[in-house]
Amino acid sequence: MLEAVKVGVLGLGTVGCGTANILSRNADEIARRAGRGIQLAVACVQNLEKSRDCDTSDIVLTEDADRVVCNTDIDIVLELMGGTEEARGLVLKAIDHGKHVVTANKALIAYHGNEIFQRAQDKGVSVAFEAAVAGGIPIIKALREGLAANSIEWLAGIINGTGNYILTEMGDKGRDFDDALKDAQRLGYAEADPTFDIQGIDAAHKLTILASVAFGVPLQLSKVYTEGITEITSKDVSYAAELGYRIKHLGIAKRTAEGLELRVHPALIPQRRLIANVDGVMNAVVVKADALGPSLYYGPGAGAEPTGSAVVADLVDVVRALTSDPENRVPHLAFQPNALSDIPVLSIDEVSTAYYLRIHVLDRPGVLADVTRIFAVHNISIEAIIQKERQAESTSVPIVILTHQVSEQNMKCAISELEELEAMTSQVMRIRLETLS
Amino acid sequence: MLEAVKVGVLGLGTVGCGTANILSRNADEIARRAGRGIQLAVACVQNLEKSRDCDTSDIVLTEDADRVVCNTDIDIVLELMGGTEEARGLVLKAIDHGKHVVTANKALIAYHGNEIFQRAQDKGVSVAFEAAVAGGIPIIKALREGLAANSIEWLAGIINGTGNYILTEMGDKGRDFDDALKDAQRLGYAEADPTFDIQGIDAAHKLTILASVAFGVPLQLSKVYTEGITEITSKDVSYAAELGYRIKHLGIAKRTAEGLELRVHPALIPQRRLIANVDGVMNAVVVKADALGPSLYYGPGAGAEPTGSAVVADLVDVVRALTSDPENRVPHLAFQPNALSDIPVLSIDEVSTAYYLRIHVLDRPGVLADVTRIFAVHNISIEAIIQKERQAESTSVPIVILTHQVSEQNMKCAISELEELEAMTSQVMRIRLETLS
Repeated sequence: MLEAVKVGVLGLGTVGCGTANILSRNADEIARRAGRGIQLAVACVQNLEKSRDCDTSDIVLTEDADRVVCNTDIDIVLELMGGTEEARGLVLKAIDHGKHVVTANKALIAYHGNEIFQRAQDKGVSVAFEAAVAGGIPIIKALREGLAANSIEWLAGIINGTGNYILTEMGDKGRDFDDALKDAQRLGYAEADPTFDIQGIDAAHKLTILASVAFGVPLQLSKVYTEGITEITSKDVSYAAELGYRIKHLGIAKRTAEGLELRVHPALIPQRRLIANVDGVMNAVVVKADALGPSLYYGPGAGAEPTGSAVVADLVDVVRALTSDPENRVPHLAFQPNALSDIPVLSIDEVSTAYYLRIHVLDRPGVLADVTRIFAVHNISIEAIIQKERQAESTSVPIVILTHQVSEQNMKCAISELEELEAMTSQVMRIRLETLS
Repeated sequence: MLEAVKVGVLGLGTVGCGTANILSRNADEIARRAGRGIQLAVACVQNLEKSRDCDTSDIVLTEDADRVVCNTDIDIVLELMGGTEEARGLVLKAIDHGKHVVTANKALIAYHGNEIFQRAQDKGVSVAFEAAVAGGIPIIKALREGLAANSIEWLAGIINGTGNYILTEMGDKGRDFDDALKDAQRLGYAEADPTFDIQGIDAAHKLTILASVAFGVPLQLSKVYTEGITEITSKDVSYAAELGYRIKHLGIAKRTAEGLELRVHPALIPQRRLIANVDGVMNAVVVKADALGPSLYYGPGAGAEPTGSAVVADLVDVVRALTSDPENRVPHLAFQPNALSDIPVLSIDEVSTAYYLRIHVLDRPGVLADVTRIFAVHNISIEAIIQKERQAESTSVPIVILTHQVSEQNMKCAISELEELEAMTSQVMRIRLETLS
């Protein structure tokens, strides 16, 4: 395999450490996908002595940003420091030194993206920014590549987790705005100064970026109409619910015959829509496209490793482009052909799941004891057992049972013994149960 | 701009015509994204005389597949004919002639993918297959690229729209399986012979592909445990609902300490999960990844244009790789820098939405008449108006109003007149309402 690509990072805070931890924990899988290793070699930090949430023993720490952006050993610079002015200067300097750049900085792109992309274009390098919008959800990739066939009609996103947490709490628990905000601050979802989140500014940065990649227009943050969630009361949330709606804070970009609508504001959404059920700090973006129709992308919109996931995905994109035959950039099966794994596939008997069972038994004493004894013998614990009403013209009663996790093999044995019971009047109906959590 | 890339297609049925229609309708936007035009030049069809759902006046039609796969004018071959054996032969022949291949054929990839990818690797060409799984949802791209940082723990998908339509009908309307199946056939969602869909075979093909790109293992269809939905009764659907679950037909791939689980079967899912609320013919895939956590991808899993959307996305990927500087393959803002649009951004006053309004008025005769007159004057039609209970210690009553679409400007005028009414006891609370349909 080729030598590892060397990467430098500006900032080793929450997202920087999340990224470092992913690169180290998943080093093998990432190299199998990218075709070569990715080594975080240098990090520029504000304070060398600060304790960090990641192992820095293999990383050269420096307080001198030039040792990252001008470092001839470094191919790619990660800008994870935040802020706009200093970050702009360092990103432009890195580009001028021929570095590819990966950034998680939505404000930087919203304010200075047009300038930065022009400079990158002139220098023939990439600036990747998947992490700038909706955390680890690959929404930039979906819009730039996955939906490249489409004329995008509109998109609407829950793109600020703090605001969505507050509105969810107001809805589920009838809490006041101030109360829910304090809770969000206590849990670390909101900053001490929550202005950017609750006034919609953070969402406006992200919407600016989404609109550009959806419609092919320059970044134009100043034209985004921005309204926060501070005026929403729990009364409104509950009146909306009575009418069949939920209130969400949306970023909306829509193409009309007259021009583009770019707006961030709270909105009622019919509660049957999938996005109306996106709760807590989760993010989601709905895209309406002319050929595909509606599609939705959902996941964690913030946090160390979710954001790091997007940073590393961008890194892998850049490394694949640096490394592969350009006509064959992404391996067919995601991993390099010589790096496929021979991990065995289990037979279904070896699989454990929870189960729903429906049985029909004669309604007489002792039957339930027989049934539960069989479960006990096969070490199957019961989560719920419910006797349903006897159906018309039937001599038997249906019983519905939910079990905890059990191996398919044990369940098969239990079912065959159940079916031998004299009181059983039909075969056992069994459906697996998946909590997907 | 460079000359258009010439493409040949095998098969001009539903998906072929969907693809042709997209390429023609969105030719300009696609070229702005890809950096050059994409021209569907030759199509191999079974019957030259058949009438088709797309304009073929600029396409050379032939019954001779060699005029596509061996054609020196063609750079990329689309395999949209279906079936496995003939398609395998033609795809391998196209690869041998140095063509890149885009296919929507899940069975072809599930059965012959290992051989096809090996041959493509040897010849230095790409075989793209986004359309083979979950129609137009960019799930292959999400797994291969968007989640490249992650060790995937499991994925679970509703990846057969026919089956999901039947289960949704059984749930929503309490219908029998046979009845719902007949309806699916009448609506064109199910084939005359529905075996592949209702027995889970189609889902097993797709799960095979998803598991390979998620875990980096060879395609191994024969090891997928496959169970259909034919045994599910409307009784089970309704018992499950009483217990807080919905029954969905899932494809599940999970990594455990012992090996991989690959299985297709019906399952109960807690109804609060987003994927439990994916209804009708829609598809969705949940992916649990170690760094990102849970993410979900939702959209139409079949149909002419949704599938064509994925085919064309793959085409754009190949064309970008053929055309661009490899280090800068995807334009930063999705469209080529010299092809950005200057479509204007509207001011919020020009935007029309529906509205939720909450007002507080003194409870006396004539007030509601004053309120509705103001709406009428400003041409605002009312969808619902509900007087809520008077709150304790208040002299006024809250009234909640939902309006139809109206321009922000008109609404502002109406609100300022409302606030001048003598009976109004507080400011008007207004929240926009978006149906997102």
